[in-house]
Amino acid sequence: MTPSDPATLPDTMTVIGFDGHGGPEVLKPRTQAVPRPGAGEVLIAVRAAGINRPDVLQRLGAYSPPKGAPDWPGLEVAGTVAAIGEGVEGRALGEAVVALLPGGGYADYAIAPAGSVLPLPAGLDFVHGAALPETFFTVWSNVFTRGRLVAGETFLVHGGTSGIGTTAIQLAKAFGAHVATTVGSADKAEAARGLGADLAIDYRREDFAERLTTWLDGRGIDLTLDMVGGDYVARNIAVAATDGRIVQIAHLRGKEAAVDVGAVMVKRLTLTGSTLRARDIGFKAAIAAELLEKVWPLIEAGRVRPLIDTVYPLTEAAEAHRHMDVDHIGKIVLEVGKA
Amino acid sequence: MTPSDPATLPDTMTVIGFDGHGGPEVLKPRTQAVPRPGAGEVLIAVRAAGINRPDVLQRLGAYSPPKGAPDWPGLEVAGTVAAIGEGVEGRALGEAVVALLPGGGYADYAIAPAGSVLPLPAGLDFVHGAALPETFFTVWSNVFTRGRLVAGETFLVHGGTSGIGTTAIQLAKAFGAHVATTVGSADKAEAARGLGADLAIDYRREDFAERLTTWLDGRGIDLTLDMVGGDYVARNIAVAATDGRIVQIAHLRGKEAAVDVGAVMVKRLTLTGSTLRARDIGFKAAIAAELLEKVWPLIEAGRVRPLIDTVYPLTEAAEAHRHMDVDHIGKIVLEVGKA
Repeated sequence: MTPSDPATLPDTMTVIGFDGHGGPEVLKPRTQAVPRPGAGEVLIAVRAAGINRPDVLQRLGAYSPPKGAPDWPGLEVAGTVAAIGEGVEGRALGEAVVALLPGGGYADYAIAPAGSVLPLPAGLDFVHGAALPETFFTVWSNVFTRGRLVAGETFLVHGGTSGIGTTAIQLAKAFGAHVATTVGSADKAEAARGLGADLAIDYRREDFAERLTTWLDGRGIDLTLDMVGGDYVARNIAVAATDGRIVQIAHLRGKEAAVDVGAVMVKRLTLTGSTLRARDIGFKAAIAAELLEKVWPLIEAGRVRPLIDTVYPLTEAAEAHRHMDVDHIGKIVLEVGKA
Repeated sequence: MTPSDPATLPDTMTVIGFDGHGGPEVLKPRTQAVPRPGAGEVLIAVRAAGINRPDVLQRLGAYSPPKGAPDWPGLEVAGTVAAIGEGVEGRALGEAVVALLPGGGYADYAIAPAGSVLPLPAGLDFVHGAALPETFFTVWSNVFTRGRLVAGETFLVHGGTSGIGTTAIQLAKAFGAHVATTVGSADKAEAARGLGADLAIDYRREDFAERLTTWLDGRGIDLTLDMVGGDYVARNIAVAATDGRIVQIAHLRGKEAAVDVGAVMVKRLTLTGSTLRARDIGFKAAIAAELLEKVWPLIEAGRVRPLIDTVYPLTEAAEAHRHMDVDHIGKIVLEVGKA
C-alpha cells in the first residue's frame, strides 16, 4: 500500500477463473482478494477486458501463465487507475487507462506493470480501449520493429479479420504500405477492404500464393505477418520478395513447416518470430512508448480504430469463449460491472 | 582501352573452360582474346586463382555464371594490375592485388569491378592472396553484417576445415566470439582447434546438437553459419540461443528443411541466408571497404591467415577439381604461369 492508495478499495473481488482445464464451461466466477500494487505497478479498476487466443489455450491447458502472474486469464484491460505503487510516475488516480497484462484481466481489478499502461485514447470508450493492448503491442513490435515495414513496401497479413489482422491492416496502411490479406469468406473480405486492405483473398476460394504471384505485377511480399504456420510457411516463402521478411506470431495450423533454404538464400529472406507474453517489462515499456508517440495520435484522429465484434458481461465469459470458435470479425470483449 | 593501358598486353591468353558439362575432365585449356577493362573495371594479370564449390557446380551445369560474366570458371584471383578502366581511382599499374570476380578467374588475365579489388596484404604471396576473396567476402558479409556476431557471443560454423570454415573460425575468434565447429575426422578437429576453435566436434562420431547442448553450460548458439542444410537446419534451431541467428550460405545436404516455427517464435530466432555472386557491385565494394579496414590489418599482423591445402598449375585444373571431392583442409589454388 502506498500513500496514493485510496481507502475505498474493497477487500475482495470477482474474477473468472477455472479449477480444471477444458471447454468454455470450466470458466467460472470466484472470489479473490483485491491485489495491492507493488513497486512499479498500477492497480486498475477494470471496466472491460479483451479476449485473446492465448486465453483459450490457457483454458485448455496448452499455455501456462508466466511465473508470478494470476492463474485466471486476461491479457488486456481498460479501466481507471485505482492505486499506484511506489516509484510509478505519470499516472493519476481515477485516470482512464488501458494496459497489457501478464494475466488476470478477467476480474474487477487487475495489476499491471507501469510500463505496460497507456492512457485511454481520447474518443474511445472502455470496451474499445480494452481491445487495443494485445493486438497493438503485438502488431507494432512484430510489423514495425522486428519486421521493419516501411512506406512503399508490400505487406501480407493472414487472418485479416482477426484482432491482429484488423490492427495490422490499418497500421500498415496508415504507414504507407501496400496491404494484402487472407480471409475466410466474402463478408470478411469486404470487412478487410473496409479497413484499408488493397487486396483481400478468400483462401477458401483461391490459393493465396497463386493470387499473390500476379499482385502488383508480381513484385512479391516484403513482409508477411503469419499466425497460421503449417503449410502456409512454404507459401509465404514462395511469394516473398527479395530481402523479404516473414514474422511468425502463432501457428494455428501447426508448428512443423517445410522450408526451402535455397529460396531463403537466393531471396535473402529473414524468417523470424516472437511471443509477446514472455518479454520483459522493459521491452514492453519501450513498445508502449512507441505506441503512445506514433499510434495513439492515429487512433485519436480516427484513422485507426479497434474493431469490436461482440461484447459480453464478465460473468458470461464462458459464452464469450464459445464465440471465439465461431465466425467473428474483430475482437470479443468482456465488460465488467454490467451483468 | 584507356591511356593507362600498357601497350605490352598480348592479344590472346589461355583460359581453362569447358564445352560441355560433366566431370573434371571437361576442363580444358583454350585461347581467348585478352579482355580490355571497361569503365570502372580493372584488368588483372592473374598469378593465382582460388577454386570454390560454385566452380564445381558450374562445371556440372548446376550454377550458371551471371549475365555478362565469362563462361569459364574462377571467382577469385591474385595478381598484378595490367590495365585500368576509366573512372577507377586508387589502383596503380603493376600493383599486387586480389579480387572477387563474377567469373573467369581460371585465365592468364581477368576483369574485376574496381570495387571488388583489394591490395594483396603485406606478407602474403599470390597463392595465399588468391585464397582470400571468396571466403573472406562471404564470411564477413554473412557472419558480421547479416549475422551481427559480436564479442562474447557463441558461434558455430559447420565444415570447419573448408575454405569458409577456416576463415570463419579465425575471424570469429579474432573478434572475440566463443567458436564451435563440426568436422569429419580427428585430423580435421585438430586443424580446426589449431585455427582457434574452442570446440571441434567430429560429426561422424557424435551428434553435434547433443554435444552442443552441454557446451558452455548449455547457453546455446548465438550465430550459426551453415552450408549443409537438410537435416542440419532442425538441429541448428535446436541448439540456438534465445535471439539466435542462423545464416544459410549453401545446402550441400539438400535445400528442403523441417523448421519448427514454434521454436523460432519462442527463441525469437532469425533464419536467413544469402548468395554472394548475385549481389551488385556496390554491395561488394562496401564489403571490400570493411575488409580493408577491419580484416586486412589482422592478416598483415599474422593473426588471421588463409589456409592452403594444395596448389596446382592452371593447366592441371581438372586434377585440382578432382581434389575438391576428396579430403582436404583449406583451399585448393591454381597457380598461373608455373606449369
